[in-house]
Amino acid sequence: MQPGLKALVFDVFGTVVDWRGSIIAEGNTSGIAIDWARFADQWRAGYVPSMDKVRRGEIPWTNLDQLHRARLEELMAEFHLDLSEAQKDHWNRVWHRLNPWPDSVAGLSVLRQKYIIAPLSNGNVALLTNMAKRAGLPWDLVLSAELARHYKPDREVYLTAVSLLGLEPREVMMCAAHRGDLHAAAECGLRTAFIHRPDEFGEVRKADEARPGEFDVVARDISDLASQLTKMPA
Amino acid sequence: MQPGLKALVFDVFGTVVDWRGSIIAEGNTSGIAIDWARFADQWRAGYVPSMDKVRRGEIPWTNLDQLHRARLEELMAEFHLDLSEAQKDHWNRVWHRLNPWPDSVAGLSVLRQKYIIAPLSNGNVALLTNMAKRAGLPWDLVLSAELARHYKPDREVYLTAVSLLGLEPREVMMCAAHRGDLHAAAECGLRTAFIHRPDEFGEVRKADEARPGEFDVVARDISDLASQLTKMPA
Repeated sequence: MQPGLKALVFDVFGTVVDWRGSIIAEGNTSGIAIDWARFADQWRAGYVPSMDKVRRGEIPWTNLDQLHRARLEELMAEFHLDLSEAQKDHWNRVWHRLNPWPDSVAGLSVLRQKYIIAPLSNGNVALLTNMAKRAGLPWDLVLSAELARHYKPDREVYLTAVSLLGLEPREVMMCAAHRGDLHAAAECGLRTAFIHRPDEFGEVRKADEARPGEFDVVARDISDLASQLTKMPA
Repeated sequence: MQPGLKALVFDVFGTVVDWRGSIIAEGNTSGIAIDWARFADQWRAGYVPSMDKVRRGEIPWTNLDQLHRARLEELMAEFHLDLSEAQKDHWNRVWHRLNPWPDSVAGLSVLRQKYIIAPLSNGNVALLTNMAKRAGLPWDLVLSAELARHYKPDREVYLTAVSLLGLEPREVMMCAAHRGDLHAAAECGLRTAFIHRPDEFGEVRKADEARPGEFDVVARDISDLASQLTKMPA
C-alpha cells in the first residue's frame, strides 16, 4: 500500500527492456560476425563521457540518439565495420527496437489501471515512443530527460517530470533497477521502487541489489511490483 | 493516401473533445443555478488575453491550468459564485474531465494502428494526461504547448513537437477544427487535416469551414479522417 501515490515513472534501459540481449540477438542475425556482446557493452558504456559533458554544461544539449550515433561511429572503427549511411541509421535505431523483459508489458498493464505510468529515461522522446509502439508498452504519456534538457541523475529531470504531471514529488514513484537513479529521485522527494534485473549485464557485471530499507518498495520484477502496489490491505 | 506521413498531432479542445457541452452538462447537474453555457463560453474565451501576454513575452510562462484558474476567479465574481478552495480546484479540473465527441475514440484507435498519434494542444501535459486516461483517448504520447513553453499558434509549438518526434515537418500532420491552427502548422511545413465540428460553439458562433484546396485533407470527423487515411489505393 502506498497512500497518495498517483504516478509511476520508470527507468527504461535495463529496467523495462533488455537492451543487451536485444542488441546481441539482432546482431547475431545480421550476418555481421563480431562479438556482439562486447559491441553492446561498449556502446552502452561509451556514451557516458559525452553525456557527462552535457551534464557539466561543457557541450550543449544533445539527445540520446545523437550520442548513440557519435559512439557508433567510434565503434565502427574499433570493430572494423564498414556501414553505409542507411545502415548506420538503421543500426542506431536498434535502441528503438529493444525488447521488453517478459514481465514488463503485463505488469505495466496492471499498474496502468490504478496509476498514471510513464517512462522517465535518458532516452529521447522519439526513441521511447517508437520503442513503446513496437513493444506494446502501455504508457499514458512519454516523459524523458529530453524534456528537461538534462540527463539523469540531474535533479532537473525528476523535478520536470513531477511538474509536468501536475503532482507533488511524494505522489510520484521512480521505478528502476539502478540504485543511483533511485537515490537521486529520493533526494528530490519522489518515492522509490527497486526492480531487480539480475541479467541486465549478462556475465560481465553484477546487477544492483537493494539493501533492506533502502527503498520504499523492492520488487523481483514489474509484475511483482504490480502485485505489491495493487493488493488490497489485509 | 498521404505517402511518407508518420505522425498525426491533434488539437484537442473542440477537435477531440466537446468542451462546451461537457461543461454545460456538468454544470447543470451541479445544483448551481447559473447560465452554464454563458459561463463556459466566457471561461473559454477569457483566457485568451492572458495567453496572448505569455505569447508576447509580457508575463512568464504560465500553463493552461493556471490561466483557467485565474479566469475562474474573475468569473466567480461576475456570476456571484462563492466557492471554497476545494470547490475551485474541482471546478478548474472540469477541463481535465471533458468528454470526447462520439467518433473520437474509435477514429483515433484506427489511426493509431498506422500512425503515431498525439495531442498537440494548448492544454498542459497533466490536463491532457488526465483527460486521456478518463476518456480513453489512445495517444501514443502527450505533446503540448507546455513542452515548448509557447502557446499555439506560435511556431515553437509545432516545431518542438516535430523535433521531439524525431521527424521532418512533412512527416507530421496537424489535425484541427480551427483554420488558424492549421495555417500556422502549414507555415512550419506540417501537413494539415481539417476536421469539421459544427457544434463546437453551439448556437453562439458558427464553426470554421474549410475552403476547397485549403488543407491536405478535409474530414467530417475523426472516423472519417481514419477512413480517408487508411483506405487502400484503388
